[in-house]
Amino acid sequence: VRISELSRVSGVPIASIKFYLREHLLPEGRLTSATQAQYEDTHVARLRLIRALLGPGGLSVAKAREVLQAIDSPPESTHDLLGLAHAAVTPPGPLEADLGRVHALMGRWGWRVQGKDCDLHAALAAALAALDDSGLELPPGGLDRYAAQMFAVAEAEVADVPTSTPAEAVRYVILGTVLLEPVLLALRRMAQQEASGRRFDALT
Amino acid sequence: VRISELSRVSGVPIASIKFYLREHLLPEGRLTSATQAQYEDTHVARLRLIRALLGPGGLSVAKAREVLQAIDSPPESTHDLLGLAHAAVTPPGPLEADLGRVHALMGRWGWRVQGKDCDLHAALAAALAALDDSGLELPPGGLDRYAAQMFAVAEAEVADVPTSTPAEAVRYVILGTVLLEPVLLALRRMAQQEASGRRFDALT
Repeated sequence: VRISELSRVSGVPIASIKFYLREHLLPEGRLTSATQAQYEDTHVARLRLIRALLGPGGLSVAKAREVLQAIDSPPESTHDLLGLAHAAVTPPGPLEADLGRVHALMGRWGWRVQGKDCDLHAALAAALAALDDSGLELPPGGLDRYAAQMFAVAEAEVADVPTSTPAEAVRYVILGTVLLEPVLLALRRMAQQEASGRRFDALT
Repeated sequence: VRISELSRVSGVPIASIKFYLREHLLPEGRLTSATQAQYEDTHVARLRLIRALLGPGGLSVAKAREVLQAIDSPPESTHDLLGLAHAAVTPPGPLEADLGRVHALMGRWGWRVQGKDCDLHAALAAALAALDDSGLELPPGGLDRYAAQMFAVAEAEVADVPTSTPAEAVRYVILGTVLLEPVLLALRRMAQQEASGRRFDALT
């Protein structure tokens, strides 16, 4: 189909499609004349992925290009491909973070977190430092309990990642990682109210 | 002790203490002359709470005053007191949210979330709408699974709330609700990497 039809089918404005072509996010169509190109179903799928990366995924154009290149020439290991996608949606961690404590926790739990994702280590270190500063004391084993609970969440999520194509897997990982965070936080707060009702309404 | 000593012991600058006095967050000391007042240990504890509310809790002065008044004249039910604290740290939900779907979910899970916290309903509704818009499809029962997992998290947290005094309970709820969110999100992302390694490194 021509670019106007590609725009109609995908719902993406022509100007955006041209921008993605210029930025090498979307592969060129097959030229049928000096000024016309034909696009296929694969272009529709790719547009859907580009929109996911740049929209909810919050990736820069450069990061999105990197992820798309990895999809087009995927590394041998799916784990490496998904790690790259995962790293792309990880915001830079605060610089002043004390990573030693986090490395110790990873060792205790037996979690292997990729070195390139040290931003994640920094994010956890900063969150734990804020907790300390506040003077809030978790009960003994509180952090281990959270780790076990979040591992259960993550394990089920990773089991759900579709492996039909690298593109589908990456799209699922990026959208699922980012978009489920507000869902989980809202669910936790609502569940706290129900749990508080169960505990304290019985006491009063 | 005098205000200078209260500042030293609590680590809160004198100017801030005077501001809290003016805003009726901190009760006046016992006047020992026209210009001097004496402060007690209770003032130190109250300062710690005020700092938690205004700092990590992110409350406005007006919201903090409301929470402190509830602590000073606590409602009969601890659940109501904690619900008030919980509501104070809930950001206003987006207005355009479709609440019907969330009410249906609450009914399905048997969760009783207080009406005054409809901001929480709106937050979940908006998060689910963003998920829909992205085209990400959770597996069947995926949302129910998240709800069950987050309920387990919340139930253990609520069981940990200290009930020695209303002030301690409120402080724990406010700090725990807010400050553990980044901890949980970082743990989930790190756990995803470990889980991905377990699933996909075995496959390649």
